[in-house]
Amino acid sequence: MNDAYLRLIDRLKHRYLIGSVQGLLGWDEQVNLPPDSADFRAEQMATIAGLEHAAASDPQIGTLLAELGGAFADLDQDCQVVVREARQDFDRVTKLPAEFVEEKARHSSAAYHAWTKARTDREFAPYAPFIEKHLELAKREAEYQGWGDRPYDYAIDLHDPGFSAEVIDQLFAELKMGLIPLVKKIEAAAAANKTVSPLHGFPVDAQRSFLEEVTAKLGFDYGRGRIDVSPHPFCEGSGADVRMTTRFQEDDPLDSLFSAIHEAGHGLYEQGLPLADHATALGQHAGMAMHESQSRMWENQVSRSRAFWRHFESRFREFFGAQLDGVSSDQLYREINAVRPTLIRVDSDEVHYNLHIILRFELEKKLFSGELAVKDLPEAWNDSCEEILGCRPTHDGEGVLQDVHWSGGAFGYFPSYCLGNMIAAQNWDAVRREMPDLESDFERGKFSRLLNWLRLNIHQQGKSRPALERVEIVTKAPLSPRSLLAYLEERYGSLYN
Amino acid sequence: MNDAYLRLIDRLKHRYLIGSVQGLLGWDEQVNLPPDSADFRAEQMATIAGLEHAAASDPQIGTLLAELGGAFADLDQDCQVVVREARQDFDRVTKLPAEFVEEKARHSSAAYHAWTKARTDREFAPYAPFIEKHLELAKREAEYQGWGDRPYDYAIDLHDPGFSAEVIDQLFAELKMGLIPLVKKIEAAAAANKTVSPLHGFPVDAQRSFLEEVTAKLGFDYGRGRIDVSPHPFCEGSGADVRMTTRFQEDDPLDSLFSAIHEAGHGLYEQGLPLADHATALGQHAGMAMHESQSRMWENQVSRSRAFWRHFESRFREFFGAQLDGVSSDQLYREINAVRPTLIRVDSDEVHYNLHIILRFELEKKLFSGELAVKDLPEAWNDSCEEILGCRPTHDGEGVLQDVHWSGGAFGYFPSYCLGNMIAAQNWDAVRREMPDLESDFERGKFSRLLNWLRLNIHQQGKSRPALERVEIVTKAPLSPRSLLAYLEERYGSLYN
Repeated sequence: MNDAYLRLIDRLKHRYLIGSVQGLLGWDEQVNLPPDSADFRAEQMATIAGLEHAAASDPQIGTLLAELGGAFADLDQDCQVVVREARQDFDRVTKLPAEFVEEKARHSSAAYHAWTKARTDREFAPYAPFIEKHLELAKREAEYQGWGDRPYDYAIDLHDPGFSAEVIDQLFAELKMGLIPLVKKIEAAAAANKTVSPLHGFPVDAQRSFLEEVTAKLGFDYGRGRIDVSPHPFCEGSGADVRMTTRFQEDDPLDSLFSAIHEAGHGLYEQGLPLADHATALGQHAGMAMHESQSRMWENQVSRSRAFWRHFESRFREFFGAQLDGVSSDQLYREINAVRPTLIRVDSDEVHYNLHIILRFELEKKLFSGELAVKDLPEAWNDSCEEILGCRPTHDGEGVLQDVHWSGGAFGYFPSYCLGNMIAAQNWDAVRREMPDLESDFERGKFSRLLNWLRLNIHQQGKSRPALERVEIVTKAPLSPRSLLAYLEERYGSLYN
Repeated sequence: MNDAYLRLIDRLKHRYLIGSVQGLLGWDEQVNLPPDSADFRAEQMATIAGLEHAAASDPQIGTLLAELGGAFADLDQDCQVVVREARQDFDRVTKLPAEFVEEKARHSSAAYHAWTKARTDREFAPYAPFIEKHLELAKREAEYQGWGDRPYDYAIDLHDPGFSAEVIDQLFAELKMGLIPLVKKIEAAAAANKTVSPLHGFPVDAQRSFLEEVTAKLGFDYGRGRIDVSPHPFCEGSGADVRMTTRFQEDDPLDSLFSAIHEAGHGLYEQGLPLADHATALGQHAGMAMHESQSRMWENQVSRSRAFWRHFESRFREFFGAQLDGVSSDQLYREINAVRPTLIRVDSDEVHYNLHIILRFELEKKLFSGELAVKDLPEAWNDSCEEILGCRPTHDGEGVLQDVHWSGGAFGYFPSYCLGNMIAAQNWDAVRREMPDLESDFERGKFSRLLNWLRLNIHQQGKSRPALERVEIVTKAPLSPRSLLAYLEERYGSLYN
């Protein structure tokens, strides 16, 4: 092996390990931090972030990359992937002036506090200047990176390399066209037999035991991971130590369960990435959309299926006999797949979910093109909500102020959620073509055939190809919303006739 | 303020923050780490340790110290403390060759695994070479630091600046002389009314609630700290975020309670150190003996007192009515102060505890002088145990292999525990001379007068003076074992007539 290559790997590993500590500090902040220790944690985070930045922009990396660039053709394919991605990371890190990075970090912190206040007060106006500034920073960042003419594409590429506003536009347009009539049909049927949840008083300890049993059976390795509680469920860490979270409410056992399965889907991806290559592109995920496709498939296609519940229902009733007394299998299954429109994205069922995302994407595009001024966002949001979702927020707290992302300048992130749903459905079609009897596994509580298929086709491939290419290789077709539409038709059509 | 001084503080703060992250990783390893993530954590720890070492030996610090050294007399007293201690730290860090630091770290890791195996197998011989090597490393380290003629004193000084084997020898000799006859008297009386614990079946959740209530009442601020579970109780972190642990057994509620109070004693010290000065000697503890004096006073003098239980007994019975049914107040109080000799230090009552330490100190001295060869340690341990404690281990697992310290090369650490007991007793005498009615506070569940006294006299003083000087200032007498002996006589004399 080329000596310069080995030294590059060593430097990338150093950076990766510092980054992993940064991640753990973030997890600890959400899960364990005493209430008055936040300022101290901010100082710790800033220190480690500074060290991570120094490691990422280490001039030695630049020298090694220059050397390896000169002999690029001599490298084998895997090494070429590593060097190519390392080159891109290094360029992106070093092209940003340190003052800019600091300015953005400082502004994000201030904007986060402004957002929490604005959401509590349900008042957008005082928060508007913070988004304006973030928009300006995002454009400057794209400029530094040589994407000055396509700043929104740059924001998208940061989360999902290879995607662009144009690509997403086409996908979303087709999806919207199919989805809106479908949603209307399902809503009409759902309105006809409107129900409220019959699930109440599920003890938290038993909920925890049940969801740990379920996620372990799906394949999550608790020898290299754990699950805790935080206000917003998330998954952090690499396959060597994956930290997931969920949240518990006694009257909503399905929320904690499906949140945990969702996060376990992310965790399974991380645990499936090649362990020895975590520091390089060979062992890293292929973007947020691909990540979301993993969590969504386990959460929706797998765990909301009849087959899944044919296996787990009896166990669920062993845990919660009293609470499920009088709740029929059909009622339970309907509750698991209940369709109830909401103004809030994170509470949305999977039928409406994609509409929430399309709304945000369309607004982001207009913000970047200048077609929409930040001050006019609330009105535009509400109009769009009425048009797409058929309901209008009564205040900005349930409208434009509901999500945290923009307060951190994370434009271009929302589309990943919907793209993830599309990829999940398309992968789901592909795997069932190969294994038509796959769902019979679930009835027997077996998930290893599916997991191995994902391991082989996606997890073990790391970031060696952009997600769009990977999808085409795996499913033998370019990404399209057709599988997602067909899946929603199939699942909810049968439920709501 | 002197510009060089401000820049020095900035560099010390940088180092301190990296060290605090290292500490958090250590806490997380004991409390949260998934079982198969240990290798990954070792890599994270090594990475952060390397960064901490680089920050501590940053040549900028050397330059600034040289500059400040030239104008030392112009600095005010506090600044002189900071510069003097920073100078010593910097010299110690930079005098050790990087290869030596690495060799010691690698050897400690190997020796730790050898120790766990040796303890399980109850076989000392395969572990002996690891201690031999550690002894050699300790001597080399002293050599590098210019203490080549007094390597054991150097080891002691690392934990308790200002102490030496000679000072400890005198203190321990006097203690031993008074303690052995006292122990014999108490043992004879205890044997006459031998009891087994009547405490069984205390639910863990209630134990946790009770000990959190107690430690909060003592003054521990849970806004800047928390308590979790680990196999061996410990306290980690600075006053900005203190992480304590305890362990629970249903049949031993006093173990979790007093462990938690002990760790809260450490935590109260950390929370009392000047928050703004955590990165310098002004805001750091004055050695392990002083630290232990804090935990011991809260655990023993305060929380095993009649007055304390006059307040907390009724609350304890509210939590555990059924379990304490038929257990009288006297029985409970005797159980809290039960004297039962054991071969294991960490299970020892406070009467025997100091003898365990004296044994280890005497062996360490002989190891360093060469009077005792490592291979002869088990025999020497057992003989010494029989002589001092009156019982002989039946295997090395309950003898020389019981403690982890030597596997990490931590010679000179054990004495701190006993010195801490002495300081605690002497401080206790001093505070009661100033406030003769102090214990009546405890009967009313009030501890703030004591805590404020400790804050003022010890915590707020940081490391501005060595512990021996601080004790003399606070108690108006040089450190001696007389207060400890008198305290043990008083407490256990009254219990065992």
